[in-house]
Amino acid sequence: MTDAELLASCHTVFPGHKARTPAQMFAAMGAWCEEHGVAHDVYGSGALLQQFEQKIAALLGFESAVFCISGTMAQVTALRLACDDRASRLVALHPTSHILVHEKSNYQLLGHFDALQAGDRHRPWSVDDLAAIPDRLGAVAMEVPMREIGGQNPSWAELEAIKAHCRQRGAHLHMDGARLWEAAAGFKRTPRDVAAGFDSAYVSLYKGIGGLGGALLAGNGPFVARAAEWFRRQGGNVIHRSPYVVAAAMQFDQRLAAMPGYFARTEWLYGELRAHPLIKPNPAAPQANMLHLHLPVSRERALGIRNHLAAQHGIWLFSRASHAALEGTSVVEIYVGDNLLDMPDGAVREALTLFSSALAA
Amino acid sequence: MTDAELLASCHTVFPGHKARTPAQMFAAMGAWCEEHGVAHDVYGSGALLQQFEQKIAALLGFESAVFCISGTMAQVTALRLACDDRASRLVALHPTSHILVHEKSNYQLLGHFDALQAGDRHRPWSVDDLAAIPDRLGAVAMEVPMREIGGQNPSWAELEAIKAHCRQRGAHLHMDGARLWEAAAGFKRTPRDVAAGFDSAYVSLYKGIGGLGGALLAGNGPFVARAAEWFRRQGGNVIHRSPYVVAAAMQFDQRLAAMPGYFARTEWLYGELRAHPLIKPNPAAPQANMLHLHLPVSRERALGIRNHLAAQHGIWLFSRASHAALEGTSVVEIYVGDNLLDMPDGAVREALTLFSSALAA
Repeated sequence: MTDAELLASCHTVFPGHKARTPAQMFAAMGAWCEEHGVAHDVYGSGALLQQFEQKIAALLGFESAVFCISGTMAQVTALRLACDDRASRLVALHPTSHILVHEKSNYQLLGHFDALQAGDRHRPWSVDDLAAIPDRLGAVAMEVPMREIGGQNPSWAELEAIKAHCRQRGAHLHMDGARLWEAAAGFKRTPRDVAAGFDSAYVSLYKGIGGLGGALLAGNGPFVARAAEWFRRQGGNVIHRSPYVVAAAMQFDQRLAAMPGYFARTEWLYGELRAHPLIKPNPAAPQANMLHLHLPVSRERALGIRNHLAAQHGIWLFSRASHAALEGTSVVEIYVGDNLLDMPDGAVREALTLFSSALAA
Repeated sequence: MTDAELLASCHTVFPGHKARTPAQMFAAMGAWCEEHGVAHDVYGSGALLQQFEQKIAALLGFESAVFCISGTMAQVTALRLACDDRASRLVALHPTSHILVHEKSNYQLLGHFDALQAGDRHRPWSVDDLAAIPDRLGAVAMEVPMREIGGQNPSWAELEAIKAHCRQRGAHLHMDGARLWEAAAGFKRTPRDVAAGFDSAYVSLYKGIGGLGGALLAGNGPFVARAAEWFRRQGGNVIHRSPYVVAAAMQFDQRLAAMPGYFARTEWLYGELRAHPLIKPNPAAPQANMLHLHLPVSRERALGIRNHLAAQHGIWLFSRASHAALEGTSVVEIYVGDNLLDMPDGAVREALTLFSSALAA
């Protein structure tokens, strides 16, 4: 049985939103298009798409936003243009930034910019991490929240200081907002408040939103128009973006409205985890509706326990598992979405007890 | 009324296939997924996608094929890698190649390769056009058929000579097969016969196939695997490709089987056009189920006639119109698909007569 089949067989799934099959998803998209009289965009031009782009721009307090096929394309493009404008090829990145960890040296191999690592691998940025850089920076790219360290953020005051610092030194401040909605709920601020002071932001149309893929890049009008031209250059100019736009637009408002509830459920989950000291959450207190669990077993053992609980109890606790620093330790991630929100409290407790017992065995 | 609304109001549409609204398309995709138990691919990994990639590879006689979000991304990547392998940055392109005409200098601005124009703007390649190049070429990219000159091809013997020449001089021969299925029908050969002798080929999942976007790149296994890595680098690694794969896969066999019929209908249309000497088809005899019509009126007048026939008679003859060389002349394109195939002969004749009269007025 594959992991996907094992997951599909479970009645109690911890991470994320309820999975919809392609049959369910496309049928829902068709019905939504019928109801709203949607026409396909043609090379990015279409009423639904432009309305959605403008809606997100307004939500984030930017002048303009444009669809991009992926965050990977959106971000390196934004940073390349920001560097061009400032005649500096240097971009400050956190060591865990998506670009450094997941994008296969694209910024180097495609000549986009040069990357400078700033700050500590295990901590969110402080303004001092950036102030310590004497070089003239073209841009600073900041992930809000930082996913690879469990969804951590600086404090609100520190974030404001970072914004002021970048403005003062003339560096373009770009937000990797892959989970911005989640961070805003954690800060108990609006997405617009979080985005204020950033010069551009990328947000995802899947992840928390539950779509099928795609992204948006927001910024001022000329910057976004130049980025759109570079997306076309890079092969992002797919004839119909509508599958990704429809999949996101049809559930966007509902997902956004649910974020505070996901965060409250995350706070509740932290309370439950106190009864299970073998499971150590990171961050120590929730900052978004996601968290990492540090486990006292190897990655392989963690996956073995996951599969055992799935096969024997119909409980799916997490998907991937990663090595942690010490031998015999590992880390897994939980995104708190519809699944945990709708799960009876008793079912969560029972699953955690089974998990904790397996870790102790 | 917008062009799209005017088109939607017509009962007699010449170019292309019957348009499906997003509501119809997504509903059909949902039903097809239900029937075939389709699961979403995850970052390009999934049973339907891998089966479809392998099916296309086999159809073209290549070892391997991989989905790519667009032909633009697929082709510059293939040519970049081919150049890397041969330690030459030089790619021979026809002056009307998609890369030179529609891709906004991407190959230069992203450092992919250097382009050398070969051959005449108004004629398909001969082997002499390539043999005249003394430089050491990394790659040769050939569009089959050449869309911007009405879908022309070299003769079969000339095509075979081009293949032999590229092999002999050690240049990678890449096919822009955006309309390969159409060319194969025109040659009365299989797609595999046409592709034999090419080192790689890109084919489209929309255009003649009727999907929503996307492309495939085919070649040998290691070449395709390297290209896939570069697609990820460039932001093509969208989490679910399934919308594009499903939209293509659910109608691929049917569309491919229809190509000879589209070509026969094109031959019939050429016969009808002989009665209207003001409308000059390019090429002079059909080589694929597409053609250009050279008109003795300005682009603006051509669009005016189109809109008049649409509003007054419910007839939509073409979509875009382009300038031709002389003042007061223009060119339009017709793709012969389901629309013309299913149209009663009398309706085609009546439309051509109305069109011809308007051109003469």
